[in-house]
Amino acid sequence: MASLTVIGIDPGSRNTGWGVVREQSGVLELIDCGVIRPPAKAAFSTRLAAIFHALREAISRCQPEEAAIEQAFQGINAATALKLGQARGVACAACASFDLTVSDYPPSAVKKALVGVGGAEKEQVAFMVGRLLNHRTDDWALDTSDALAVAICHLTMRRFSSRIAGA
Amino acid sequence: MASLTVIGIDPGSRNTGWGVVREQSGVLELIDCGVIRPPAKAAFSTRLAAIFHALREAISRCQPEEAAIEQAFQGINAATALKLGQARGVACAACASFDLTVSDYPPSAVKKALVGVGGAEKEQVAFMVGRLLNHRTDDWALDTSDALAVAICHLTMRRFSSRIAGA
Repeated sequence: MASLTVIGIDPGSRNTGWGVVREQSGVLELIDCGVIRPPAKAAFSTRLAAIFHALREAISRCQPEEAAIEQAFQGINAATALKLGQARGVACAACASFDLTVSDYPPSAVKKALVGVGGAEKEQVAFMVGRLLNHRTDDWALDTSDALAVAICHLTMRRFSSRIAGA
Repeated sequence: MASLTVIGIDPGSRNTGWGVVREQSGVLELIDCGVIRPPAKAAFSTRLAAIFHALREAISRCQPEEAAIEQAFQGINAATALKLGQARGVACAACASFDLTVSDYPPSAVKKALVGVGGAEKEQVAFMVGRLLNHRTDDWALDTSDALAVAICHLTMRRFSSRIAGA
């Protein structure tokens, strides 16, 4: 593949981070990124709708070809899982509405792809995202760098699998 | 309101029931209903995409004006909540893509609106759905009658609130 553009999404009902990264000939380029913060006092379904529309707007503008989402971490309670699940579902639906395939990765795989170890801190991941994209990270929320990290993780995995296929 | 058409949705990653009911001058009419069963062996995100597209198809065809979804029942574990949450999120996104507002009701409210008691069995609810819609229920999955039940619950609540507003 000469070029591939991927949207990474870190879904959450309060903050949904997203970031679009293009890889061309092994060079990563940040296309755009941001955090969706639906009105906190709105009904939950209204917040989900806001996430859906904002993600669709980002996808429509940045035209990614594939999508990647981090898997939910273990050890959350049922109430949190239900909220997080709904935000994830909305993110998958936004991708489905553009016929983007969605790959998901466990948090440890994302960290390993970025930092080399599965137990890295969020700040370390954010630092590496900035380095790889050659971009300042000061103005990014952690949700943004997490979303960019899963996009970069997906691009790394795709590069490996196309190399294996080509070997 | 002279007439109102509502889609009720009972989301689940294996079976998503849906049913569209119209109320005109106090008379309920079944427009259409069904169960979405995404391919069981497909990747989870593919199943979510299948639910999203099938629900959009139903909404596009039946043209409901509002949507109602049953709240998740308590007492499920985190892994189940995460799966159920994603199916719910997809259902909310499908509604949002048509700008339908989504109301949600706890299972006990749905049962109470249909059967008169909050602890009714699913079969009792299905029986009442059939009676109210004047329709045989033999060929319905329980997910379908649950979806129709939440649509009828929403229509009942809307009738009460418009009466109160008119009083």
